[in-house]
Amino acid sequence: ACTHGFTVGINDDVSNKSLEVKGQINSIPAGTISCKFWGLGSDGTVGANKNSIKIIGDNTEMYAQGYFQYDSKKSGGITRSHLRFGNQLIQSEYLVENADFIACHQKAFIGRYDVLEGIKEEGVFLINSDWTKEEVFANLTEDMQKTIIEKRIKLYNIDALKIATEVGLGSRVNTVMQAAFFIISKVLDRDEAIKMIKAAIEKSYIKKGMDIVEMNWTAVDTVNEKLVQIEVPAEMPAEHVVAKALISEDADDFTKNIIEPIMREKGDDIPVSHMPFDGFVPSATTRLEKRGVSPVVPKWVAEDCIQCNQCALVCPHAAIRPKLIKNEELEGAPELFQTLVAMGKDKDEYKYKIQVYIEDCQGCRVCVNECPKGALVMNPIEDERVAGENENLEFFESLPEDVLGSNKETTVKGSQFKQPLLEFSGACAGCGETPYAKLITQLYGDRMIIANATGCSSIWGGTFPTIPYCKNQNGHGPAWANSLFEDNAEYGFGMKLAVDANRKQLKTNATALLDQAVNEDLKDAIRYALANWDGTSSEVKNNAARIKELLANEEKSATISKVIELQNNFVTKSVWAFGGDGWAYDIGYGGVDHVLASGKNINILVMDTEVYSNTGGQASKASPLGAVAKFAEAGKQTIKKDLGQMIMSYGYIYVASISMGANKAQALKAIREAEEFDGPSLIMAYSPCINHGIDMSMTQKEEKKAVDTGYWLLYRYNPALRNEGKNPFILDSKEPTLPVLDFLEGEKRYTSLERTFPEKVEGFRKGFTEYATKRYETYKKMAEDK
Amino acid sequence: ACTHGFTVGINDDVSNKSLEVKGQINSIPAGTISCKFWGLGSDGTVGANKNSIKIIGDNTEMYAQGYFQYDSKKSGGITRSHLRFGNQLIQSEYLVENADFIACHQKAFIGRYDVLEGIKEEGVFLINSDWTKEEVFANLTEDMQKTIIEKRIKLYNIDALKIATEVGLGSRVNTVMQAAFFIISKVLDRDEAIKMIKAAIEKSYIKKGMDIVEMNWTAVDTVNEKLVQIEVPAEMPAEHVVAKALISEDADDFTKNIIEPIMREKGDDIPVSHMPFDGFVPSATTRLEKRGVSPVVPKWVAEDCIQCNQCALVCPHAAIRPKLIKNEELEGAPELFQTLVAMGKDKDEYKYKIQVYIEDCQGCRVCVNECPKGALVMNPIEDERVAGENENLEFFESLPEDVLGSNKETTVKGSQFKQPLLEFSGACAGCGETPYAKLITQLYGDRMIIANATGCSSIWGGTFPTIPYCKNQNGHGPAWANSLFEDNAEYGFGMKLAVDANRKQLKTNATALLDQAVNEDLKDAIRYALANWDGTSSEVKNNAARIKELLANEEKSATISKVIELQNNFVTKSVWAFGGDGWAYDIGYGGVDHVLASGKNINILVMDTEVYSNTGGQASKASPLGAVAKFAEAGKQTIKKDLGQMIMSYGYIYVASISMGANKAQALKAIREAEEFDGPSLIMAYSPCINHGIDMSMTQKEEKKAVDTGYWLLYRYNPALRNEGKNPFILDSKEPTLPVLDFLEGEKRYTSLERTFPEKVEGFRKGFTEYATKRYETYKKMAEDK
Repeated sequence: ACTHGFTVGINDDVSNKSLEVKGQINSIPAGTISCKFWGLGSDGTVGANKNSIKIIGDNTEMYAQGYFQYDSKKSGGITRSHLRFGNQLIQSEYLVENADFIACHQKAFIGRYDVLEGIKEEGVFLINSDWTKEEVFANLTEDMQKTIIEKRIKLYNIDALKIATEVGLGSRVNTVMQAAFFIISKVLDRDEAIKMIKAAIEKSYIKKGMDIVEMNWTAVDTVNEKLVQIEVPAEMPAEHVVAKALISEDADDFTKNIIEPIMREKGDDIPVSHMPFDGFVPSATTRLEKRGVSPVVPKWVAEDCIQCNQCALVCPHAAIRPKLIKNEELEGAPELFQTLVAMGKDKDEYKYKIQVYIEDCQGCRVCVNECPKGALVMNPIEDERVAGENENLEFFESLPEDVLGSNKETTVKGSQFKQPLLEFSGACAGCGETPYAKLITQLYGDRMIIANATGCSSIWGGTFPTIPYCKNQNGHGPAWANSLFEDNAEYGFGMKLAVDANRKQLKTNATALLDQAVNEDLKDAIRYALANWDGTSSEVKNNAARIKELLANEEKSATISKVIELQNNFVTKSVWAFGGDGWAYDIGYGGVDHVLASGKNINILVMDTEVYSNTGGQASKASPLGAVAKFAEAGKQTIKKDLGQMIMSYGYIYVASISMGANKAQALKAIREAEEFDGPSLIMAYSPCINHGIDMSMTQKEEKKAVDTGYWLLYRYNPALRNEGKNPFILDSKEPTLPVLDFLEGEKRYTSLERTFPEKVEGFRKGFTEYATKRYETYKKMAEDK
Repeated sequence: ACTHGFTVGINDDVSNKSLEVKGQINSIPAGTISCKFWGLGSDGTVGANKNSIKIIGDNTEMYAQGYFQYDSKKSGGITRSHLRFGNQLIQSEYLVENADFIACHQKAFIGRYDVLEGIKEEGVFLINSDWTKEEVFANLTEDMQKTIIEKRIKLYNIDALKIATEVGLGSRVNTVMQAAFFIISKVLDRDEAIKMIKAAIEKSYIKKGMDIVEMNWTAVDTVNEKLVQIEVPAEMPAEHVVAKALISEDADDFTKNIIEPIMREKGDDIPVSHMPFDGFVPSATTRLEKRGVSPVVPKWVAEDCIQCNQCALVCPHAAIRPKLIKNEELEGAPELFQTLVAMGKDKDEYKYKIQVYIEDCQGCRVCVNECPKGALVMNPIEDERVAGENENLEFFESLPEDVLGSNKETTVKGSQFKQPLLEFSGACAGCGETPYAKLITQLYGDRMIIANATGCSSIWGGTFPTIPYCKNQNGHGPAWANSLFEDNAEYGFGMKLAVDANRKQLKTNATALLDQAVNEDLKDAIRYALANWDGTSSEVKNNAARIKELLANEEKSATISKVIELQNNFVTKSVWAFGGDGWAYDIGYGGVDHVLASGKNINILVMDTEVYSNTGGQASKASPLGAVAKFAEAGKQTIKKDLGQMIMSYGYIYVASISMGANKAQALKAIREAEEFDGPSLIMAYSPCINHGIDMSMTQKEEKKAVDTGYWLLYRYNPALRNEGKNPFILDSKEPTLPVLDFLEGEKRYTSLERTFPEKVEGFRKGFTEYATKRYETYKKMAEDK
């Protein structure tokens, strides 16, 4: 996947025979067929196209070439495949600009992207939709209709989802679309092509069983029957689709000039003069996207809900949220805006509501699986739209945030009434990382600075131009930046030093104001601020806001100007370095160690996926014994580095190991202790990842299983306890209730070895059991230490 | 100090008023007096000159400027001070080329360096020597005499050492030379200058007591009397000194073109075309220097010697060595070549000899202090020369090396009969680092590759152009290279991977030879090599030498050529990464951790001085609580990083903590275990340093005290023991017999805080005691663990 902003990622495929010969690269030989496919990362388009290149490269004398273009979402993003086929060498080392064939694998793209851009006269356009033969043309935009008529395009439609479902392939439409392409593109003779596809299917799927092979064969045969050529009218028809506006008309310049074009995949057309010259990018902009990418989304079954808020805690995208709503605020609610009487002490004053953000949901089902009472079920997004969930959302958003009633933010339930200041990121559906980061923003986001290491979290956290970190009603939210892979701890450390220096200056100048002729109310407010200098209560925050107002009324003296310059520092900042294990255990470890050793009050969150997730799963020193990863194809030879143990050896650093799905309260407690500790802190958070080869709807369950089996330990090391004469180390994990091998057996990163290196399995499994047993004993002993 | 090759280091002094104004920099204003002083790092010349600039800068309206030029020896090297004084702005930002005044603070420089280079007509030349008025001129070289006569130079002599000694200042000649300079240079009026010097003396020394002030005052007054102007003859006299040859006439090109000019401080004149184009520099070249810098050197009192070889082990410069000599080999020995009957089993066959390399000795006295029987005493080098020690040495060197008799190299005594392959480095007198490195070369130097981190060890280990790593009689010695501060472990790791790859290729090709038509003896030798592939015995080494000979006789086939190309890999290499704590704890720690974690068989030696020694003593994470260092002027706020504990957490890495002076056998054992362990190894070696503010003749005693007080722990963690069902951790330190504060009280890095931040001392001392106690307990518990 592309990893930066709107610069597109371009990969070239292995089978490009044209690369054998160097020379003139701009001529496209006569007879070359250029093709472009619009798809989603999740719909198999790229895979099918790579397969097509392989079929031709391996079985014919033809030349084939493919470039694959991705957006910067971690998954579920837009993909464009650029393929060329021909009987002569293809030396065109650039994307397809003029296409003989264009396919649109998602009907939702119509009206949003300029799908037909560059299509040649008399070219072919293939759509995957459930529209009838008669409906297709009317569902195109006016521009598209015009192009098709004027360029005499041959238009085809196929209901690929229906075929795939009927033959038993579920939503895997790739085989269907590939067959349709070969049938109508004329790259190969139709019958020959079908034979080749079927042979390729057999080769690919035979290991999974002959039934799977036959399902796919059936799909291919069905395409032959069901592919429909659409009659194109000679004149423009009356009916067409209007391209949906993506942003409001009163949007700011950045949104209009930068975000909107990129949302339409036109980022390469933006002139440099429109770019922010200082690198500043506004936050809270993923909320503009409303991607609506999941065909099914959760539906709240209110009558079964026990108001525990766990769904909200575990949602990787902040797409399901609770609120307490004063009875009187419900006035004007949409008719179908369902609420419950709030539980316990709040029952008289408040109603309780769970709101699903259906257009922002990725459909991962983690909330559904985590709900202890089955109060969430998956439902087609279309049904939810019809049921008015978007209108409900609009009303929900207009209601006050951060209403806790009698709840405390120190509880899981209470924490979730606070507004998440990380929402709708490009993280994978079911991501194990984002729930941790999101929870931290709920607690500290309004006064938080984040230095983010390169890796998944820098992608879902800061993909240009839409930013998932957002702001509360006062305009306060995390300030976020990403430097290099290797210096993130140092980068955050610099921020911390800057905060300290600014606050020191502010204190000096604010104190000086007390002796100057300024408003007495201002002096009182400053006195309060100085008396509560490190406080972070809402009183302190309100007082800081009041100071700001009062300062604005003062005549500008040198001192007043300085205080105004630094006024945002009246409330102290919570400085964090975020990153993955590739950063913290490997590439940035030297800095992590150095910054933690400094003794300064900085917080480090390691979202440990045990692998370099962003680049596709390379082994890191956090990868455990026997785990299969890139650079560790035969299983990792060494045990996982014990980062916690290493950092605890300093004795003055707060260290915690957490796993949300195993113990949500412990995770919350550790985060709070880390932030409150007056010194450096390190939190290692177990984060299941798509690279583990697991069901991503079960990431929270994996987190639980990891702890239940002793695969991952929960603990907290709090040096502050030593001052109370206590052992700083607390082991929060119970004695494992399941063998650790149970965990390994549930993840492909471990089980795939049985197929590839079966002779190694036993040794690794034995080693892992010994390692896990010994580790638990060691940690238990530490906890028992006086 | 300059840190690289013969590029000279130039520092500018703070008092250069001329730097206030920018502009034309090449004109030297009329009336400016330019001065040049030749001295040694150890004789106080630079300090005195900085002081002179301060006196004039602080007390007069004159302008003063100083540049200080150093060679690249860690200490005891040549210094040249370039000073300018005048009534107008001095903007000449370059060294003094034409001097009004030149001083030579060491008479040994005459004939070796071109001291009078650039002296102006009627300039002044001052010599510090014990020559009488009549002797001085005859002791100059012909060139110097000619210059003095032709340029009508005013020549002065002073016996500064005599004056300093007489007034009680010992060998500190700086005050004397400074006074002499002011008296004859005419920079200031003589009386005024003397007044100022005396005031400056009072200011500098009053803290040390009025007696010291008065000694220095007396010295100044005495200079006034004892300074002698030497009558210069009108014609060239018959007598003069002949410049001593520094290299032999049949020396190689590199020695002639590069080493010799640099030894004469003419490195800047070497044309680029003479430089080695591939960066290769021959080793074993410090032996050319014969610097003779120490006025007193050890003398062996044979009758008191118990033949323990400890003097040789601890010598930082390999300047004192033992040999076992067969009785018949003594034939032809110089008359004064003293030996003892070898002790024990060897008494009939061997004589025993300790040889002092008097010209290579730095006079640190560590050997004298370490000798358990007082069998070494310090004696003037002149007396030892007269006594024929250099002739003895010549004979000693002609005798066979590595004669162990009945001793084993696994004992301290036996190890010292092996030739050190690190000798006469530019390390400080008394250096705590070099004895460790030297010992490793005695054990593995003939098949050793060293990646050296930047720091002291890269300076004393690889100062261009003379290299202290050397070769045995077979031409085998350490291959050494230095990359960057931050990547040394990785650099060594690459070397290890290369060795492994080369040996793998060699094995394949050598095995293939067994099926080809080659000499049967060669096949036998190869069979032996393959059967002992990882062996390092002398049989294996001799067999490898034999293979080399046999290969040379073979007709060149592809396989033969490949085997010849790789033939130096028949004996496996011992790959080491060397460096200090600045590297291993701080800047290169990420790499150290990564390379050790890899599980590959590489050895890391950390010479832990607890401070960035090479750059003058900045705090590192190895610096202990309360130690004063640069960037930690008020004492380091945090405890020492426990690198050993951190690396032991991996469980599969050999880790040892050693301190030679405390337990020589343990140090030797740890080094051997580390090298033999089939996996990564880390040795942390406590290395007292001049930056600690200690008596450098007592570095081995400091190493002992560190362990006796529990300041430093001795231990070994050997994962191989786990396979034997044993606890891999062995604590070699005994319960401390002295309070840790006893150690701190002996080092200025701790005691200076009593003067600068007295209020902090108690807290630090208390903290240190707690820390040391707790640490010992923790380690003891680890050792008791089952």
